[in-house]
Amino acid sequence: MSLLTVGTVAFDTIQTPLGKAEMVVGGAATYISLAASYFTKSINLVSVIGDDFPQAELDYLSSKGVDLKGLQRKAGEKSFFWEGRYHDNMNARDTLDTQLNVLAEFKPVLPEAYRNAQYVMLGNLTPSVQQEVLDQLTARPRLIVLDTMNFWMDTALDSLLDVIKQIDVLVINDEEARQLSGEYSLVKASKKIIEMGPKYLVIKKGEHGALLFYGDNIFFAPALPLADVFDPTGAGDTFAGGFIGYLSETGDLSFENMKRAVIFGSAMASFCVEQFGIERLKGLSRIDIINRVEKFVQLVNFDANI
Amino acid sequence: MSLLTVGTVAFDTIQTPLGKAEMVVGGAATYISLAASYFTKSINLVSVIGDDFPQAELDYLSSKGVDLKGLQRKAGEKSFFWEGRYHDNMNARDTLDTQLNVLAEFKPVLPEAYRNAQYVMLGNLTPSVQQEVLDQLTARPRLIVLDTMNFWMDTALDSLLDVIKQIDVLVINDEEARQLSGEYSLVKASKKIIEMGPKYLVIKKGEHGALLFYGDNIFFAPALPLADVFDPTGAGDTFAGGFIGYLSETGDLSFENMKRAVIFGSAMASFCVEQFGIERLKGLSRIDIINRVEKFVQLVNFDANI
Repeated sequence: MSLLTVGTVAFDTIQTPLGKAEMVVGGAATYISLAASYFTKSINLVSVIGDDFPQAELDYLSSKGVDLKGLQRKAGEKSFFWEGRYHDNMNARDTLDTQLNVLAEFKPVLPEAYRNAQYVMLGNLTPSVQQEVLDQLTARPRLIVLDTMNFWMDTALDSLLDVIKQIDVLVINDEEARQLSGEYSLVKASKKIIEMGPKYLVIKKGEHGALLFYGDNIFFAPALPLADVFDPTGAGDTFAGGFIGYLSETGDLSFENMKRAVIFGSAMASFCVEQFGIERLKGLSRIDIINRVEKFVQLVNFDANI
Repeated sequence: MSLLTVGTVAFDTIQTPLGKAEMVVGGAATYISLAASYFTKSINLVSVIGDDFPQAELDYLSSKGVDLKGLQRKAGEKSFFWEGRYHDNMNARDTLDTQLNVLAEFKPVLPEAYRNAQYVMLGNLTPSVQQEVLDQLTARPRLIVLDTMNFWMDTALDSLLDVIKQIDVLVINDEEARQLSGEYSLVKASKKIIEMGPKYLVIKKGEHGALLFYGDNIFFAPALPLADVFDPTGAGDTFAGGFIGYLSETGDLSFENMKRAVIFGSAMASFCVEQFGIERLKGLSRIDIINRVEKFVQLVNFDANI
């Protein structure tokens, strides 16, 4: 079923303890779309780029089933750029440079064919832009998932809370959950956040896995222990793309299937961090993904014998 | 089967974001013995206290099946004392005071009946004291488990490495594993540490769960998400006590059963942190423990449907 995603399509320069990559293709919507493309071939992307963005990269996205009619191209302008450096603990990073460029004046415009989307992934962006996407939909989607970050909690909390009221699943990290709720305990944080509107809450903990909250139910998905994490950039977006991609493929919004979606999202994220940028997300096979999910099964599998 | 444990029996003063407890009973061997007592009633404790330690607390340990013939009591001296303050992130803490007292000159002496122990838990102590315990055994135990800390890596690395060569399971936290191996990645760290001698390695990650490494196999046990963590003091020792207690009860040293032991250890630790000191470890029932283990089963349970 059709999946609409909004987010950045951008360039990143990334330093990690294992190396550096300059001006590589990135952006939330890029990672989301690529990850989701392994589950559905009906992906509509809403974003903006400058005329510096390589056509070959756009052609690649198209070849993966990503429709780019909603991608605005601004002549004479530059694409969004982010530069960051990760610590040894790759859950922590410093932003070295952010150039908004085309993003500064971004007004999302949904082509007619996008407006009846059944699955909507609002990638991390200004909450008002996320709202403008929702406002252009002609009917309530089956599922709206939103990602955000602490920056918007600091600078646009009211509009963020307004959007959060309208969604089904909020996907944030542990620090963001603590900031949004004012609670240190993630269990307490989850209760407060679910009162803000979303039925489901996913709290990503990076190398420590992810928690899915629904009513009084908690599901925990581990992260796969890896010998080398080359680059965590985009892992959260890749998780979100795998998560909503799996849900749109299966069409099943039960808690049991949400758990599976968290595992498939985690599996996609575990690929993402194995190379810089989007490289590892190119050319995976269905068998690669199934084998990776099987590793998650094995990792936590035990017979309590009680 | 008989379980021998060595470690501190002590007093702690503890500050956490949720409160303070002064001069409460603690110590590695206390937590280990109490946790293990839910699985075996044949526990032999080797430690030292001053004449300030309340007889009622010793009687309580005896009532739980803990034999105290190996507990030295030094007239006119004081018991080991530790004072610490935990951060909001309870994986981090500051030591405010350490008074070795009776521990400064501690020479463990194993009563004759302890020397053929089949399960040995070497709690966190000077590596030379852990070695002296091993030296007094008359036969190789079925299983030797060792806990240690970064302080001994800084101050007594050679003797620590000597003891580690002789054991079966090393139980340490993530920071300690990184320091001991010089590797940031826990997967790489585990390979180096297993080359040091132990067949099994458990890496405790506090609120982020625990990893069990054996050859190329990795098992991950989550920590239970709790609304309130009152006091993490002793959680690692309680984990170790539940772990070896379960193994001594079942007598099965297969990887499958080690996985179960990690879950039972995690379940015991999840009780420990719910109150200050050892309070929550008093008066649990077998049903309480089974119900808690069932929560771990539910927390990670999913059907991948692949």
